[in-house]
Amino acid sequence: MVRSMPVNARSDVPLYVKIAETFTRQVATGVLRPGDRVPSLRKLSDEQGVSLSTALQAYLWLENRGYLEARPQSGFYVRTPYAKLIPEPQAENGQSRPATMGTNALLEEVIRSASDPVSIPFGAGCASADLFPNRKLNLIMRRILRRKAAHSGNYDFPPGVEAFRRQIARRSMAMRCEVSPSDVVVTGGALEAIHLSLRAVAKPGDVIAVESPLYFGILGSVAALDMKTIEIPTHPQKGMDLEHLDRAIRKHQIKACITVSNCHNPLGYVLPDESKRALVDLTSRANVAVIEDDLYGDLAFDARRPLTAKSFDRKGLVLLCSSFSKILSPGYRIGWVLPGRFRAEIERLKLLTSVAAASLPQLVIAEFLESGGYDRHVRRLRATLACQVEDARQAIARYFPPSTRISRAAGGYMLWIELPRGVDGLKLHRAALLERISILPGVLFSVTGRYKNCIRINCGHVWTKTHDQALLTLGRLCERQL
Amino acid sequence: MVRSMPVNARSDVPLYVKIAETFTRQVATGVLRPGDRVPSLRKLSDEQGVSLSTALQAYLWLENRGYLEARPQSGFYVRTPYAKLIPEPQAENGQSRPATMGTNALLEEVIRSASDPVSIPFGAGCASADLFPNRKLNLIMRRILRRKAAHSGNYDFPPGVEAFRRQIARRSMAMRCEVSPSDVVVTGGALEAIHLSLRAVAKPGDVIAVESPLYFGILGSVAALDMKTIEIPTHPQKGMDLEHLDRAIRKHQIKACITVSNCHNPLGYVLPDESKRALVDLTSRANVAVIEDDLYGDLAFDARRPLTAKSFDRKGLVLLCSSFSKILSPGYRIGWVLPGRFRAEIERLKLLTSVAAASLPQLVIAEFLESGGYDRHVRRLRATLACQVEDARQAIARYFPPSTRISRAAGGYMLWIELPRGVDGLKLHRAALLERISILPGVLFSVTGRYKNCIRINCGHVWTKTHDQALLTLGRLCERQL
Repeated sequence: MVRSMPVNARSDVPLYVKIAETFTRQVATGVLRPGDRVPSLRKLSDEQGVSLSTALQAYLWLENRGYLEARPQSGFYVRTPYAKLIPEPQAENGQSRPATMGTNALLEEVIRSASDPVSIPFGAGCASADLFPNRKLNLIMRRILRRKAAHSGNYDFPPGVEAFRRQIARRSMAMRCEVSPSDVVVTGGALEAIHLSLRAVAKPGDVIAVESPLYFGILGSVAALDMKTIEIPTHPQKGMDLEHLDRAIRKHQIKACITVSNCHNPLGYVLPDESKRALVDLTSRANVAVIEDDLYGDLAFDARRPLTAKSFDRKGLVLLCSSFSKILSPGYRIGWVLPGRFRAEIERLKLLTSVAAASLPQLVIAEFLESGGYDRHVRRLRATLACQVEDARQAIARYFPPSTRISRAAGGYMLWIELPRGVDGLKLHRAALLERISILPGVLFSVTGRYKNCIRINCGHVWTKTHDQALLTLGRLCERQL
Repeated sequence: MVRSMPVNARSDVPLYVKIAETFTRQVATGVLRPGDRVPSLRKLSDEQGVSLSTALQAYLWLENRGYLEARPQSGFYVRTPYAKLIPEPQAENGQSRPATMGTNALLEEVIRSASDPVSIPFGAGCASADLFPNRKLNLIMRRILRRKAAHSGNYDFPPGVEAFRRQIARRSMAMRCEVSPSDVVVTGGALEAIHLSLRAVAKPGDVIAVESPLYFGILGSVAALDMKTIEIPTHPQKGMDLEHLDRAIRKHQIKACITVSNCHNPLGYVLPDESKRALVDLTSRANVAVIEDDLYGDLAFDARRPLTAKSFDRKGLVLLCSSFSKILSPGYRIGWVLPGRFRAEIERLKLLTSVAAASLPQLVIAEFLESGGYDRHVRRLRATLACQVEDARQAIARYFPPSTRISRAAGGYMLWIELPRGVDGLKLHRAALLERISILPGVLFSVTGRYKNCIRINCGHVWTKTHDQALLTLGRLCERQL
């Protein structure tokens, strides 16, 4: 028996959803566990000061989403979510050697297909445009156009617009990164931040350690700079195998290590604090820079904003990279880096690569952050995405062949799926395109040809019956390969 | 005796200025020459259908700017502009060897000083924000916000927004570059276009031939990619010494040649068509790529839009890079490249460097171009800048020590000034900063320490008495060094 948490005052979400979400958060954080009985309807209605019918709506919403089950004559209980029984993908082990990315033919094929008109975009990593606070951002933008007609009349040279950097510095407190506005350098998105960081800490020919699997954009970025990659086996919850990393550092003179420590892309885990600390301890001792991609950090389903590797950085060796592309608007192209001791070099490289970041979106986002609108939006988006991801997991478990494994995403909106041996992710990608469904083949997420029987599914789109049906189709296409 | 040209219908410029500008254009294009008599006041008033007093105002405006002189009892005559008598800087000759940019300390010092609060910004290369069509662009932006709330809800992956690329392709016709929208790749400004082009055609360690002097941002961009630079002596009107370039290509396995063929930065010349053709002939024969920076091309003072090296490209070896930062708004950060045969590689590199260009500014600019507003704006801006540059030239000729040489800018808004031997541009830069005037020292424009006695002056700011006085101050600071 547990008590429900107080409900936040949010005016734009139905009351019963607000109440229901306090339960989903408790499930996510483990406060509520399968088999726990939740308060009776009457008790809930008393505690929350809502009508019985609102309390009932909340429980029905939770039941529909597989969080609760009603037991006759007994009340509501936390269910073992169906999808929780699904096995996760496992870390591959074995030797790894520095490698350069092979042919770009595959990447180009996938990119070309990204502009094909598909009905169901499970491929490219972006959420539905409807999930973004477009109207509110536009309102702020209109105000700025009125107030400052020449908003874009100058170059905002690196480090970038002060008001924006101040907001980023303030928000960094939540992850215990004490930085001042001058420790923030604005970039054209998170990938540019990573690209500049790579150039600041390494030279062509140098070896960069990465998680495996890893978002292909980062792997491609490393390769495009003529740097080599060494893939470190990565546990689906505990992240990089640090012993393996330690050996690689000793053997290969590694210059930097790239980590997506929160809401890993594609594995979905949030690295535990102790693992983050251990990673930073190890790399700091060896004087290896850490390029941390925190792009999805604000989208961890847990109510608490997770810490970052940067939170444990004492030597200024962690360069934290992020952007608002996954939360506010991919088309704004505004990101940033907290570059630690590499600040001067990052500013210089930004200037010599693209001169400055765009002015207007920095002004708009700064105001949205300052107004508190951002925090409200993120809370809502997080809950929505958690449901979409869970819906997708359950559908995959239902429709895909029996020994399929699915990642347990703790945030973001990616699912990593290990198909039964014999199923080829690339073939599946091509077959799915004919059905106007896009997915990403697993081989993209490695430079050494791993993950042939894996795919990544983007669950960032508002969930409908069509999406459910598309997963059914994908499941059938898998079976055809068996 | 010449007839005046018909006056454009523009509502926001005083009528007498419009009339006066038809004369400045004729002077710029050589239709009117020093000593020519212009129509009498009565004739002008008849021809243009304006009052006598408006005609007089126009001539006084021209007289004040040194275009006309009144000869008693005889009428108004085109004057030999004082500044025309000023000698130009001369091309340095001598051997050149591949070099890497030395210490960045100087560049960093100048960049840092760029954010100092100066009163007179003759340094960084941007025009007054007041000269940009801010109001009109904002109007279009507001319309788009209304029409398409989720304007930035997706990634516009390379090559970029189609409507924007179509407009660029259409405009390229004016310089006889026949390209389709799919031959345009959108970037985050012209320097990113150049950066991507460099990576597409060369590798770290490769040698790149450049004009000398050349905009330091390009030199820095080459150096930041660990490429070497070879400076080719550059004539202040005829551009790179092609024999020298030919020898360098044979000797150093040059991978690419960078040229600012229109409104050179800093020399200001517009390369004659035959020189453009000769450059492309030479490089094509040797299979050397040409990275052409056409950033200021629309700002050539001549009424005809100058051609580009790309106009003579038959093998797809010229990558033309440009942006709207100098004409519409530096803060938008939208540029493009016509990459010829390197299209696939440029798209791939754009994706792996910064994913995509921002969506909203592409939509806004596309509409402004389509509406014809852009062409009207450019005509006006060109005339304004021509006057500002001329005003600055005359003031420099008046205030600087006798053997000072000044470039004859045929477009853009930069003046390159060769000070008498013994005057140090860097010292002058530092002394000027104490007077709250920024300029750029000439040494920035070379990787081999040339141009110690040169400076670049940005004339992009609306000309006032304060600017005139600042040049007087600079002249005195020069004299102190003699």
